[in-house]
Amino acid sequence: MGLPRIVVVGAGFGGLQIVRELAEAPVSITLVDRCNYHLFQPLLYQVATSGLAPEDIAHPVRAILKHQQNVSFRMAEVSSIDLTSRNVETTTGKIEYDYLVLAFGGVTNYFGLYSAADYAFGLKNIDDAIAIRNHILNMFELAAQQKDEKLRKSMLTFVIVGGGPTGVECAGAMSELVNIVLMKEYPELDFSEVQILLLEGSDRLLPSMPANLSEATAQMLSKKQVKIKLNAIVADYDGDEVVLKSGEKIPSCSLIWAAGVRAASIADKIGLVQGSMGRIVVTPTLQVESYPEVLAVGDAAYLEVDGRALPMIAPVAVQQAKAAAKNIVRLINGQKLLQFEYKDPGALATIGRNAAVAAFGKYHFSGIIAWFLWLVVHIIRLIGFRNRIMVVINWAWDYFFFERAVRLIMAGKEVYLKYFSWKSNTTSSRRSDT
Amino acid sequence: MGLPRIVVVGAGFGGLQIVRELAEAPVSITLVDRCNYHLFQPLLYQVATSGLAPEDIAHPVRAILKHQQNVSFRMAEVSSIDLTSRNVETTTGKIEYDYLVLAFGGVTNYFGLYSAADYAFGLKNIDDAIAIRNHILNMFELAAQQKDEKLRKSMLTFVIVGGGPTGVECAGAMSELVNIVLMKEYPELDFSEVQILLLEGSDRLLPSMPANLSEATAQMLSKKQVKIKLNAIVADYDGDEVVLKSGEKIPSCSLIWAAGVRAASIADKIGLVQGSMGRIVVTPTLQVESYPEVLAVGDAAYLEVDGRALPMIAPVAVQQAKAAAKNIVRLINGQKLLQFEYKDPGALATIGRNAAVAAFGKYHFSGIIAWFLWLVVHIIRLIGFRNRIMVVINWAWDYFFFERAVRLIMAGKEVYLKYFSWKSNTTSSRRSDT
Repeated sequence: MGLPRIVVVGAGFGGLQIVRELAEAPVSITLVDRCNYHLFQPLLYQVATSGLAPEDIAHPVRAILKHQQNVSFRMAEVSSIDLTSRNVETTTGKIEYDYLVLAFGGVTNYFGLYSAADYAFGLKNIDDAIAIRNHILNMFELAAQQKDEKLRKSMLTFVIVGGGPTGVECAGAMSELVNIVLMKEYPELDFSEVQILLLEGSDRLLPSMPANLSEATAQMLSKKQVKIKLNAIVADYDGDEVVLKSGEKIPSCSLIWAAGVRAASIADKIGLVQGSMGRIVVTPTLQVESYPEVLAVGDAAYLEVDGRALPMIAPVAVQQAKAAAKNIVRLINGQKLLQFEYKDPGALATIGRNAAVAAFGKYHFSGIIAWFLWLVVHIIRLIGFRNRIMVVINWAWDYFFFERAVRLIMAGKEVYLKYFSWKSNTTSSRRSDT
Repeated sequence: MGLPRIVVVGAGFGGLQIVRELAEAPVSITLVDRCNYHLFQPLLYQVATSGLAPEDIAHPVRAILKHQQNVSFRMAEVSSIDLTSRNVETTTGKIEYDYLVLAFGGVTNYFGLYSAADYAFGLKNIDDAIAIRNHILNMFELAAQQKDEKLRKSMLTFVIVGGGPTGVECAGAMSELVNIVLMKEYPELDFSEVQILLLEGSDRLLPSMPANLSEATAQMLSKKQVKIKLNAIVADYDGDEVVLKSGEKIPSCSLIWAAGVRAASIADKIGLVQGSMGRIVVTPTLQVESYPEVLAVGDAAYLEVDGRALPMIAPVAVQQAKAAAKNIVRLINGQKLLQFEYKDPGALATIGRNAAVAAFGKYHFSGIIAWFLWLVVHIIRLIGFRNRIMVVINWAWDYFFFERAVRLIMAGKEVYLKYFSWKSNTTSSRRSDT
């Protein structure tokens, strides 16, 4: 008999961690992902705001795993999973498994608001981030040539939905891109016409963090000319105008959707019980109840701890991956499985230069120390020494020279040049994660 | 009366140089380009072969010119030029001029071979380079999963057409990507199935350089497992099979077209006399004969020196730009114009690690000294200190660690995943410069 075959779907934080944890195990692993790289999603918003190049936060999966003997990588998209005959159907053929790990991660959640899905920008993958970068820079180039004041102002109004860490960090970075860098380069423009709005549906920013940090965050963002609207829920968007539930209308050519995440669409196709955000319900041992040889981790998995669902963040994925790897070995050896216990590692969010908030248990603080901590944590967590060097150089460069180096419009520019305004281009969708 | 209005079309080597030369002149310059960045084209093939990130060799035009007061930048595509009423029609409106500089550069020249235009990859802009990078890496990912030997071999056969500097440098870099880097990461593949072919229509490589260097180049490439075919002319390509004029057929999913350049298509639309490669014929003062207020430089201009047309290379563009700037000032002041004199700066081409050829007048040499010279020259010529740092780090990294860092498939992957083979996807064109 051959070695137990393990198929891991997804090379994000969870999938990659599982594969690495099993490096010494007598198993044969196949890792499947539609991309050939692992993406460091927490810094994606910096690609969207011209701070980092996409290449700085992505690392080829084969490069990461080249010294691990018991794994083979397969770039393919999973189209369905046959849980009964135990095989994964992909765009490049079937893969049989003895044990399956679902680590396919999450995508942008528009909560059924189709107009936002069509015209807003998500921020979950590299294509999203590049699309946003191109779009922001295009808006400035076009506004610089636009004589119609109304149209120009809506080109210069950037609305970010979602006051969680992604929205907050994105708004802060947008503000610095505009006020530190672009302001020096567009003498044609009156920068009082530029507006950055951050919309949050609840009554405070960073609802998952302590309330005093919400206040500090709001203050730091306001200092950076970010307008914050709380209790603001988007009802509609046609590419030109954001309509809120209150009836308020905000003319804007740019809606960045950082308001929600859900499990990738494959979660809906495999016939397993789903919890909130489409996630696959797992037991405390991270197994699917009816198929104990199937485990799920990270954004793909739904697990409640003390009556609350675990959040869809990287630390959960990494911790679950470690536990899942141990449990797979135990399953193979016929041992009793371990219950997953989540240790909250604390939370960090950066607002910009010298500005961040941090919450570790009962310790809450904001300002330059939180910011420095944020820098260190993110550099350490990046995979690949070269990526670390590149990120450090880019950050140091931007910090000392008040710059954003990567403000390049690459690809997709034809659309803008031909139509000049979104109005003429209403049939195309801006989504990349469909 | 206001300042003389100068419109410069194109922010390549020529256009940018003219603008900088005129920094102190009492003129009002408008620089127009469809991209918001200046591209360092000589290193484009390194982006195509995963050595550099696109961001390393592109620099925002506004950043380059932010300290120059007499120029404004306009991102737009020129659609036509009215030479009589002296205005340039762009996608974002008209621009009137007193003096016009045509510096719109060149595009890939398929010499009317429409099948190549549809299925081959050009290598003249960032989108081209990213498309090639994505494609090469996709071919390896797909070949690793492909059981049909014939199809797999054609996925692993890479044909480069054109034995000039671009083709030679591209073939060398491809070979190193394959034999130094990818070979370690695809244990599934038998690398004896990988073929890199370099086709040249004449009887030697680098026909513009001395014959002994052609020989040295051929030897260095052969050592790197590049197969060279001289007197080989492509007659047809359908995405699966390259057909040569001799009747020989080469099954290959990848044809990189480095066989020719011509002036950008706007050259055909303005009703001026065109020389070979569609270039606008200019007088020795770089003026258009019938419109003395119109000058042309670089790949846009056709000028014979000693009965031979000047080549379409960066040094010609830069030298002509300097002369054209002087002549514009003289035109404004009513002075006699200067005749352009070309000084051949010599030629360099790199084949790979420690391997290059150099020709400076009667001095011809090859090997590590030529290679080192090549490195220094290219780093000096790059615009922007940050770009220089990034390129140096990338090169050092790749040199010492036998790596190619940027082997990431970004965007366009859906096509490959869905169709798996080019056969099923015959309606789509791979060109980006249409």
